[in-house]
Parts: sequence; C-alpha cells; structure tokens
Amino acid sequence: MRSVVWSNGCLTLLNQTVLPVKIEYLECYDWQRVAEAIRRLEVRGAPAIGAAAAFALVLGARKLAGLSITEFKYKLAETAEILRQTRPTAVNLFWAIDRMLSVISQLPENADTGAIIALLEQEAIAISDEDKAVNEKMASHGASLFTKPTSVLTHCNAGALATVAIGTALGVIRKAWAQGNIKGVIADETRPLLQGARLTAWELMQDGIPVTLITDNMAGWVMKNNMVQAVIVGADRIALNGDVANKIGTYSVAVLAKEHGIPFYVAAPISTFDFTINSGADIPIEERCATEVTSLGGNCIAPEGVQVFNPAFDVTPHTLISAIVTEYGILRAPYQEAIDQLYKIRK
Amino acid sequence: MRSVVWSNGCLTLLNQTVLPVKIEYLECYDWQRVAEAIRRLEVRGAPAIGAAAAFALVLGARKLAGLSITEFKYKLAETAEILRQTRPTAVNLFWAIDRMLSVISQLPENADTGAIIALLEQEAIAISDEDKAVNEKMASHGASLFTKPTSVLTHCNAGALATVAIGTALGVIRKAWAQGNIKGVIADETRPLLQGARLTAWELMQDGIPVTLITDNMAGWVMKNNMVQAVIVGADRIALNGDVANKIGTYSVAVLAKEHGIPFYVAAPISTFDFTINSGADIPIEERCATEVTSLGGNCIAPEGVQVFNPAFDVTPHTLISAIVTEYGILRAPYQEAIDQLYKIRK
Repeated sequence: MRSVVWSNGCLTLLNQTVLPVKIEYLECYDWQRVAEAIRRLEVRGAPAIGAAAAFALVLGARKLAGLSITEFKYKLAETAEILRQTRPTAVNLFWAIDRMLSVISQLPENADTGAIIALLEQEAIAISDEDKAVNEKMASHGASLFTKPTSVLTHCNAGALATVAIGTALGVIRKAWAQGNIKGVIADETRPLLQGARLTAWELMQDGIPVTLITDNMAGWVMKNNMVQAVIVGADRIALNGDVANKIGTYSVAVLAKEHGIPFYVAAPISTFDFTINSGADIPIEERCATEVTSLGGNCIAPEGVQVFNPAFDVTPHTLISAIVTEYGILRAPYQEAIDQLYKIRK
Repeated sequence: MRSVVWSNGCLTLLNQTVLPVKIEYLECYDWQRVAEAIRRLEVRGAPAIGAAAAFALVLGARKLAGLSITEFKYKLAETAEILRQTRPTAVNLFWAIDRMLSVISQLPENADTGAIIALLEQEAIAISDEDKAVNEKMASHGASLFTKPTSVLTHCNAGALATVAIGTALGVIRKAWAQGNIKGVIADETRPLLQGARLTAWELMQDGIPVTLITDNMAGWVMKNNMVQAVIVGADRIALNGDVANKIGTYSVAVLAKEHGIPFYVAAPISTFDFTINSGADIPIEERCATEVTSLGGNCIAPEGVQVFNPAFDVTPHTLISAIVTEYGILRAPYQEAIDQLYKIRK
C-alpha cells in the first residue's frame, strides 16, 4: 500500500475517498488533477499532501518546458499559488511548495528550463524519500514512549495513507507493536469523513495489528473503563508554543485524556511546524461543506436544509500535550524552548 | 408529531428508524410487534419505551380474554417477562411493566378477565397521559435555569420522539425558547444511530427553533469557541447517588462541559430513577451489534470483519452534573439526599 507514487512523469495516488470498499488508483498526468485530488481529499494527511504538491509542481513545470525562463518562472509561481489554496490548515503543503520554489530561486537567470525541471523532479523525489526516513526516525523515537504492552487510542489517520511511508502516529504504533509493546489499538471512526473507520482500521488490519473501531463519542467511556493507556495522533500544523492543529475531534480526545490521566502524544515531522506563528490562535481552520455531515455514501442522514457547523480541524493547546515526537527526538514542555531548539537544528 | 398513539386496540408508533427521510407509522395489533419495535429502536427514548410497553401489555391481555383468570395471569406474566428483555438499560421500561402488573396483583382471585383488560387499558392510558403532564412540569422547572438568551448543546434525542409529549430535555428547551431564553441549539449527531441528526434536528426545525448540527467530535471545539453556554440531556436510568446512564457520548460531553465551566443539566421524570441501585456501576449497559457502527443506510463504512465496541449507553457520574430537572423540581448536589426526598414524595 503506497499513497503517493511517482514514476515516469505520472503521479499515482491511492484514492482515499473510496477505501476500504474499493482500491482505486488515480493516475495524474497534470498538476490540475493533483490539485483536485488534494481538494477532494483523494490524497490527504499533512505529509502526503506536501509530497503530492511537490510532484504537482513537477507536472506543472513539464508543461512549461518550451517557455522562456522568465515566462516559465512566472507560470510556475501561478501554479504554486493555486496549489497553496487547495487546503488552508496543513502547513506541510506550504512547506513543500516553498522548498520546491527555492530550487528555482537559487538558479542563475539564464538557466535552461529542461535542467530546472530535472532539478525540480529531483527535489520532489527528495521530499518524498526524506519522508520515509523521517517516518522511520519518528517511529524509533516514539516507540521508546511505550515500555510495556499498552492499548493506545488514535484519532483520524496518521498512517501510511497520510504519508509516503509507515506513517507518523501509526509509524510509532507499528514500531512499538514490533517491539511487543502494543496490546491493541482503539480507532476513533472520525466523523464526518470516517478516516479512522475507513483508513486507520484498514491499515492496521493489513498489518495484523489488533484494532477495535469505536464511534468518536465512545472515547471518553473507553478511557473511563481503562481500555486505553495512551493516545497518539498526528498533526496538521504546530505553532511555536506547541499548540497543535489536527483533525476535528482531537481537542476533545486531549481533554478526555487529561481527565483520565492518560498521556496524550503527537507525532509529526519538522515540516509540520510553523515557525512563523506564536500560537494555535493564528492557525486558519478550514470549514468544509455541510453535505459532509448531512449525507453519507449518497444517503441523506439529516433533515434537508439543516444548518451545519463543519470545521475540519481543531487546535489542541500545548498544555494538554504530554510529548511531541519528531524525527529529531521527543519534545516535552516547555515547548517554546524545545521548538526554538528544533528551529535552530533545521537552520 | 406523536411517537406513541393508542386508539381502539391499535398502538400506532412513528417509526424512528426511517426519520427524517420517511414519515412512516407502524400499526401494532399484537404485543410481539411492539416488542420488536422496542428491540429495533422503531420506538425509543426512555419514557416512550415505557408507554409502548404498557400498551403492549394491553394488547397481550386482549388476546388472553378467553382464558381462566389463573391462566390469564400466568400468560400475561410471561409476556411481561419477554417485554422486560427487549432492552436492558432504560429503567422506565421496567417501571411501566411493574406498574401494569400491580393493577392485577391488587385484584381479587375471581376477577373477570374482561374487567381486568379494561383496568389495564385504563392504566396504560394513565401512564401515557401522565407523561404529558410530567413533561410540562419538567419544562416549567427546567426553563427557570435559563434566565437570559443561551445557546445550548444537546446529545441524542430527548424530545417529543422520546416521550409521549413535548420531551424531557427538549421540553425544557421548548419552554425556555418560548420565554425568549434560547438563542439556538447545537445538536450532536449522536453516532451510531444518529438520533441527534435524524430526530432532534428534525423536531426542532418543525418548531422553528434554530438548530445547528455537528458531529459528536466537534462538541469540545464548539465549547472552546464559546458557542454554547449550557448542556441539557435526557436520561435512561438514574441511580440513588445521582449517576446518570444516557446515550453513549453523554459522559464525554459532561467531561468537556466541566473543562469549559459550562453547566451540565439532565432532565428526567421520576420514572427514570432506579431507587434500588446505589450507583451507576450497577446499571447494565446494553451492547448492540457491530453493524450499527460499520454500516450506514446499507453502505459499508469500515473494513469487513473489523472488531467493534458498541455500547449503547454510558454513565455520567453525579459529580459532573450541575442539576437534574424532574417534574417535582430541580435536584442539586448532594444528590443522595435530594433523591431520597424524591423517593419519599413518590411513596
């Protein structure tokens, strides 16, 4: 199972909107199709979106091969701008696009577009390959948090389907499972789009890791009944103070974890940190259309015309977070200092 | 809209499993069909289940009219036993059945079965009629909790569809709305069976009360953003210490309300109190089948064969409850004393 695969000028995406009922691959030969896939959530998960956007820029660049270098740069910047607008919350999207554009900005004015396209492809492949290495490092650091057989709850999907490799939160779970320290996983179904039911449960079953599916509103009762001893989730954007934007419902799970004295962990690579914002209050929260809530698989499940509030993400304040697992190690409070350190490492 | 209507030996139930897409009435001429309706949740909500079971006993009794009084009593007790087993958590079911059987136990040995059937019908009608009066009284007491325009969150459906009249929690909301003290209602969709989306949103829209539908996992974020100032829910069983069993997810909402300093109210008639149990630990929690979680409207929404945990209820400890609204007034902590008082009133 690979969510994002690049080969010979074609980006193949595993269509995550139809899993697990159908295993369908989308072959994208132009950047517009990739942008559409990001908007429609056919590819989703912060690191996977970043990689997909990087390859979209390569696809865009290939179509501009015949242009003058000035026109090429101008048109590619336009493409980048549209890609940036596909989704507002996950910062990996902007991080990947910026990284791709910086390849061009470093080139001389008279560079050859063919050479630039080759460099862009190389950079996108690097982003994708690095994600694999980063996943492995996070998994190793994160697994050290589990020292005895533990039942762990996760929300949404921060797995192979959300990344290019073994996943962020699910990468940690996979590693800890291999080390004999996971008893089982409780997967929140994660309404409205059911990434927990459709993606996380499916991924874990493929790997033979015991998983129990619950509706989101059961998380508190599961904790109250001592059915979990830890929570681990991914992230879409992390602010300088350690506040974490992630799939809607994460905040509720964090509050419930605190109430029950259960550690709440976040696993995210450095590309998920936004070093330009001080706190979660600065993170834009995407609101999606009402039909995601009012219909399911074409079935209407609510009265016609009902008003809906459908934020796709929420922000968990750093005070509720026990640790943040990165590829550079495990961050703990005070997060401001730990994240300042991380920023210096990156530089 | 009436959920439970008795007329000329026929119990008409509004089929709550197909709302709001279809408005379908089930005409029940025998008690077995009513038992099936309770099991399938075609009729649901603690007070409505109680009333339906009472009428089911009348239907059962009518079929036994030709028997000797001894056989009549024996067979009716058998029927009562099967009705008791339809659902385990809501105590109103047992309360209504006990009340019906007590009619018979008070009769002389040589009573005429025809006369008994008439008495049973009279008692079932009394149970149903009393529910209307009880709803009104609860609404009046509960509305006094709202002294200025308030946005209120509710979970599941504790409305007209769950009772014989205006509802418990929604009865309070209706009254407070009429008094100008409700700005709007946030309705949790209430997975797995979506009673919030299908029933509560629909009921409130019928009455022109502004309602906004959210998925269950948005409740915390809604509170964090000051979009609600109170929570009110119904109950399926209340223990002597004030612990409340209600629809799964209620406990999580109560924890979230505490975290945000939002009052958490329960509205329930005296028939929902179980004066035989000391705490919520003694309340049996119904577990229902996995397909309620893994499929929706016939669509599969999770991997085939996934393990599921599907408790239909949870228990909210009395420590998280700001007040319990009953037809006798508003109970506050210490609940043990308040409920002891209630028990004495009932006697």
